[in-house]
Amino acid sequence: MAERTVNVAEYLFTRLIQLGCTSLHGVPGDFNLLALDFVESSGLRWVGNCNELNAGYAADAYARLRGLGAICTTFGVGELSAVNAIAGSFAELAPVVHVVGVPGRPSQKEGMLLHHTLGNGDFTVFARMYKEITIAQADLLDPATAPMEIDRVLRTCYVESRPVYIQLPTDMVEQPVHARLLDTPIDVTSHASDKDAEDFATHIVLDRLYEAKHPVFLIDGAVQRRGIRPQVEALVNKAGIPTFVAPMGKGVINEDLPNFVGLYAGEVSAKGIAEAIEQSDLVITIGNIKSDLNTAGFTYRFSRLNTIDINYNHVDVKYAKIENVYFKSLVPRLERELDPSKLSQTARQVPSIPSPQVADETDKSLITHAWLWPRLSNFMQEGDVLVTETGTSYLGHWETKLPRNVTIINQILWSSIGYGVGATQGAALATKEFGKGQRVICFEGDGSFQLTAQELSTIIRHNLKVTMFLIENSGYEIERWVHGMEAGYNDIPQWQYSKFPQTLIPEGTSHTVKTWKIRTRQELESLLQNKSFANGEGLQFVEMHMPKGDAPKTLQEFGRGAAARAS
Amino acid sequence: MAERTVNVAEYLFTRLIQLGCTSLHGVPGDFNLLALDFVESSGLRWVGNCNELNAGYAADAYARLRGLGAICTTFGVGELSAVNAIAGSFAELAPVVHVVGVPGRPSQKEGMLLHHTLGNGDFTVFARMYKEITIAQADLLDPATAPMEIDRVLRTCYVESRPVYIQLPTDMVEQPVHARLLDTPIDVTSHASDKDAEDFATHIVLDRLYEAKHPVFLIDGAVQRRGIRPQVEALVNKAGIPTFVAPMGKGVINEDLPNFVGLYAGEVSAKGIAEAIEQSDLVITIGNIKSDLNTAGFTYRFSRLNTIDINYNHVDVKYAKIENVYFKSLVPRLERELDPSKLSQTARQVPSIPSPQVADETDKSLITHAWLWPRLSNFMQEGDVLVTETGTSYLGHWETKLPRNVTIINQILWSSIGYGVGATQGAALATKEFGKGQRVICFEGDGSFQLTAQELSTIIRHNLKVTMFLIENSGYEIERWVHGMEAGYNDIPQWQYSKFPQTLIPEGTSHTVKTWKIRTRQELESLLQNKSFANGEGLQFVEMHMPKGDAPKTLQEFGRGAAARAS
Repeated sequence: MAERTVNVAEYLFTRLIQLGCTSLHGVPGDFNLLALDFVESSGLRWVGNCNELNAGYAADAYARLRGLGAICTTFGVGELSAVNAIAGSFAELAPVVHVVGVPGRPSQKEGMLLHHTLGNGDFTVFARMYKEITIAQADLLDPATAPMEIDRVLRTCYVESRPVYIQLPTDMVEQPVHARLLDTPIDVTSHASDKDAEDFATHIVLDRLYEAKHPVFLIDGAVQRRGIRPQVEALVNKAGIPTFVAPMGKGVINEDLPNFVGLYAGEVSAKGIAEAIEQSDLVITIGNIKSDLNTAGFTYRFSRLNTIDINYNHVDVKYAKIENVYFKSLVPRLERELDPSKLSQTARQVPSIPSPQVADETDKSLITHAWLWPRLSNFMQEGDVLVTETGTSYLGHWETKLPRNVTIINQILWSSIGYGVGATQGAALATKEFGKGQRVICFEGDGSFQLTAQELSTIIRHNLKVTMFLIENSGYEIERWVHGMEAGYNDIPQWQYSKFPQTLIPEGTSHTVKTWKIRTRQELESLLQNKSFANGEGLQFVEMHMPKGDAPKTLQEFGRGAAARAS
Repeated sequence: MAERTVNVAEYLFTRLIQLGCTSLHGVPGDFNLLALDFVESSGLRWVGNCNELNAGYAADAYARLRGLGAICTTFGVGELSAVNAIAGSFAELAPVVHVVGVPGRPSQKEGMLLHHTLGNGDFTVFARMYKEITIAQADLLDPATAPMEIDRVLRTCYVESRPVYIQLPTDMVEQPVHARLLDTPIDVTSHASDKDAEDFATHIVLDRLYEAKHPVFLIDGAVQRRGIRPQVEALVNKAGIPTFVAPMGKGVINEDLPNFVGLYAGEVSAKGIAEAIEQSDLVITIGNIKSDLNTAGFTYRFSRLNTIDINYNHVDVKYAKIENVYFKSLVPRLERELDPSKLSQTARQVPSIPSPQVADETDKSLITHAWLWPRLSNFMQEGDVLVTETGTSYLGHWETKLPRNVTIINQILWSSIGYGVGATQGAALATKEFGKGQRVICFEGDGSFQLTAQELSTIIRHNLKVTMFLIENSGYEIERWVHGMEAGYNDIPQWQYSKFPQTLIPEGTSHTVKTWKIRTRQELESLLQNKSFANGEGLQFVEMHMPKGDAPKTLQEFGRGAAARAS
């Protein structure tokens, strides 16, 4: 009996599904069309984005929620349009598979002067560029090795939580490979720690924890991105010591926990927070990312002598590095071996920091940042996904108190403006697939929106559930605070945003799209209190005017620091 | 007396202006803000695009018309978003300067964990990527060498007609350099031929030309892109032998010349054309680009033994290559030394090929490709710039007979869909600067439009004179003809295109934007015959419905060939 086969495209797509990626983002182009024939027959949903950059952003957010995301583009023109998004996934630790349909092997071998090339017969130039921003690459040139190659890069993508790059030549798409290989799941268990090193690290961490009078945890972004949020929460729960999050870690820890204190962002932290953490005699960070924006311009004010950093694959104790210790293994072990009775008597004293308060301003009609972000605390619901754009909102939401299990999606490290629209599409598709009715709420800046606005079309096309607040404040507000408060280059044309989404709805279809244009706090209040708005289906798009020159306090302070560092 | 100084940014911007680039495209970002402070004070116009990819497309088209174009983006996120456009400029021979504002030298030296980095302390990764797609690079790290470095890359950009890449660290922007250096213009004379080689080539070309019974010229894209259109036209005029253009050369030769025959695209040429050229005993090509789409899938049917290729920097005679002969020098010399009395008596017999005829179809109400493109011949005016998008229009317009001095802008080699909108903005800004009231007319596909639609905003913002025909045919028509005629992935959501531009006009402003939505040949006729439409100011946007599944004859034939080559 002949052995059952699938073709290379089917093999690849089935593997994506097995790893939890059930939608493929991207744009068709002549070198990927044949592969696209096998997307839906393999059980994958084809998204069909407006452009490749947006598709890349969407796959990034989708990946953060689903554990794996993927885009498919065409050779040269298509893949290069997605470069910024993939580099962002690299920086921000999002596991995205980029499949590129490339010319057939004979064309490549002959160096033919094809369109989508630079005209110099070099078919490897784009792959060289992608090597700089992906963690593994495969060029599927041989049916005999293609399954192994696919498995290798998908494993790396999943385990390392970083993007990978796969070239699929058109003449390889329909090459047969053994179907039975698909019966063995790809091994995606994470790396094992070096046993002795992990023993050593465990004892050091616990001993130091027991010794400390005022130990604290500082939880950060890599915990979410690398998928150890439950394990970290279990440790934080059991230890009961005061726990802070860094900006990229916002949402990782349940903010209702009695030992949750607040968000630490160096010198721009809310009143009382910095003092509380900086007076500690032991700061244990988990998944900390010490980037400029995440540390408010490198303004941590505690000594490395009082610090233990539990990182993805190593632990830093004071000035010593313990290598080959993976936090996926170390954190659950710490939780198991921790004996809370050995903590010092003062270890569980949790400083009382008042919750962010809604500002009491003179002019109560304007929607100001000082008022908005604390106000949203009551609007947020358990399970929400909150997308904040690079700009006022990715700093502003630090002042919003979150209910349990809210996932924050943004790019505090990579900081590419325009990410929000694509990311919202990807996030909303992921939550649709989860099927639990979760809301995806996005705060988008007007300047950022203009980069990627068309992707609202994809949100509408797939009937995704999205509430987007478009912050209309006449330009690139975050840049005003860095440099050029009154400069013309920070101005943008003021679109009629609330009329924009309607033009993307095909005539005669019944997509649910509702738009609002609001200018006052009262209008926003009535919207936030409206129950049908709170759980509205389809796209809800709110053009929300905020004063030009207004910004969250943190941005005002950040901007000054960034300007100083830039010069 | 102290010597007068300018800062590095002012030096760079002044040099751009000296070379004819008087507008700077791009998007602000925190690492280029300081440099942007000096744009307008240096006399450059700041365009302020919606996103970097569109800015890159715009700079490409602007460069083709002005001789030099430029964009300015920020480090990482900004520059990577423009990669596809810059690679396109490399492939398509457009002289674009990409200025990237990068972090200050101290931050780079310390490998700081800044936003817009990959988080690994490597500040050189994006420059390495750009090295693959630019012809020269400069990293301005030293005020002492910065002027020399700037001059070097600008010279290369201008002379080689390909993109270059300049990194400008924030702390270098205000470093002083000697202003007097600006008094000496950058030497942009092209490379000189090797004298003996050029003598040799001249004699061979002329001797072969005199010998031939039926010599012909085939003129192509590099003539336009490398700026020797007048010299080539003088040679073609003086020789008087039958002259053809290849697709990328469309518009380079005055189509009213008595010896102009038509457009040669291998086996998809119009009736009579291929026979005429393929029966010749000497084909002299100038600036020919033998890419797949430009040769209709490598279907030239004449022998290399009957061919002389006059290329940018070398001449191919039969199977022999004569190096170091530059066509900028050779072509005028051929024109000077040519003695028409020595041509054979039959050399000037010009075959009579009927002009493309408007199709006589049964259903005369639909706007079909067969009808449209010949019909446009009467609409085109001398001096027009015609932008055709990668898709039906960049093949369709081959059937349009052009008046004198029409410039065609498209990407027959690079073929990135979405180029048209950005390119139209750049072209219209260039013609505005020429001040002669030229029209910029764009035929844009619906699928392509969705990639870059927002850049209409920049056209409106700068009150540019643009007529855009949006071809509404329900999807990626060119791809249908390659693969997947009925496949869902080639469908797109049908936007309400004619309502779209209005949403980009700031309220209370008086930008001229007119829109139409037409479905019949009669409606289009009345529009084309309307004099106020023919010379309308501002943005004229025509949503023009054409039947799904209809395509220019050439695309239908092309698609079959492309599909065969792809598999």
